[in-house]
Amino acid sequence: MNLVLLEDEDFIDDDHVRLGGRRFDHITTWLGKDSGDSLRVGRINGRLGRGVISAITCDSLTVEVHLEEDPPLPLPVTLLLALPRPKMLRRLLRGISSMGVKSLYLINSYRVDKNYWRSPLLHPEKIREQLCLGLEQGRDTVLPQVVLCPRFRPFVEDDLPAISAVTTNLVAHPGDGCIFPHQPQLPACLAVGPEGGFIPYEIDKLREANFIAAHLGKRILTVETAVPALLSRFIN
Amino acid sequence: MNLVLLEDEDFIDDDHVRLGGRRFDHITTWLGKDSGDSLRVGRINGRLGRGVISAITCDSLTVEVHLEEDPPLPLPVTLLLALPRPKMLRRLLRGISSMGVKSLYLINSYRVDKNYWRSPLLHPEKIREQLCLGLEQGRDTVLPQVVLCPRFRPFVEDDLPAISAVTTNLVAHPGDGCIFPHQPQLPACLAVGPEGGFIPYEIDKLREANFIAAHLGKRILTVETAVPALLSRFIN
Repeated sequence: MNLVLLEDEDFIDDDHVRLGGRRFDHITTWLGKDSGDSLRVGRINGRLGRGVISAITCDSLTVEVHLEEDPPLPLPVTLLLALPRPKMLRRLLRGISSMGVKSLYLINSYRVDKNYWRSPLLHPEKIREQLCLGLEQGRDTVLPQVVLCPRFRPFVEDDLPAISAVTTNLVAHPGDGCIFPHQPQLPACLAVGPEGGFIPYEIDKLREANFIAAHLGKRILTVETAVPALLSRFIN
Repeated sequence: MNLVLLEDEDFIDDDHVRLGGRRFDHITTWLGKDSGDSLRVGRINGRLGRGVISAITCDSLTVEVHLEEDPPLPLPVTLLLALPRPKMLRRLLRGISSMGVKSLYLINSYRVDKNYWRSPLLHPEKIREQLCLGLEQGRDTVLPQVVLCPRFRPFVEDDLPAISAVTTNLVAHPGDGCIFPHQPQLPACLAVGPEGGFIPYEIDKLREANFIAAHLGKRILTVETAVPALLSRFIN
């Protein structure tokens, strides 16, 4: 936790928050903070700054906050990600959020196990929880928007044209196409398939939607390794 | 498993291997292969090719192999990685191996928990197991070399000069230095600190050893996200 993320309902008045639960435990036990100590804080979808602990009880603490810094600029990449298996999704949501992606579409693909769409992890509150952990890691406050698209073809034909109209559009496709550009023009839209990759029909549909297939060399990476590796190419 | 990795002791003669255990289970149950089916195979530290299943018993299978392809070129990056916590080390070893790194130094740092050095995961056999899983993922056969360096200063002063004499030397250092280059000159040597980063003394020692501090933007990434993101910059 490189930043204590503040929810609107934590605010007692404009300059004070009361924190309990996970954040209380983390701040007092893990960080070993006490009354008078200072913390890095940020308000969800708002500004960042410092907080000073003004009071501690057995299960909550009051922090006086001064929020004077803007959050870091978003990574201007819209990510289309074939829904990964739940355990991996949890880590991916945190990683993607920590890297500054603000727009994520979880899409279907032939090789996505249908059961993944029934995972309790896809509940908006569960997704938000992982995204917040990513923001705390990356010292950011702006929550990414996540859209679930459980049907591939309607998504690509009906929704994608508007999403990708003015972006550099790339689809990660091991073993085919060109090498993934080192510094693609921004903003961009990046599609990443499931383990095993998109099937040829899906790649064709993405090509029709003006996506260029590109790879990161001969090796086949897990989605978990590929996503940070691909997003890194967009960081300037 | 995008490749079935063959050990020297699997070979019955020059063209045949017998496989049991994890690989037998994976091939028969997970991949659903049967007699006559073909597999992608590779011999550890050797060549890659196709195998055809010539016989199956209840707990082993015999495969006729034709190894005619060279393994992919190594990623010419020597990685110095502050020893991460064991659970993360396991995933990192797989990821690093799948990305083609062939030389990994696990080094000490002030913020590395001393207990990590006593983890059973550091046993050579356990390390090899994770590296092999990474090779199977990345379709490679060449095992990375891993060196344990439990003392920071002797490593940097005595060993590092020879390791980094002719390489582009970069140390990942969030919030300081320049932006991490998009296409650094190769071969390279990359140092990555622990969660919380290298301490200033360690950064100074690395700078004395001709390392340039560079970051991937304002955000602070976990080591697990940072390593693939950084290595990606070297893939051409």
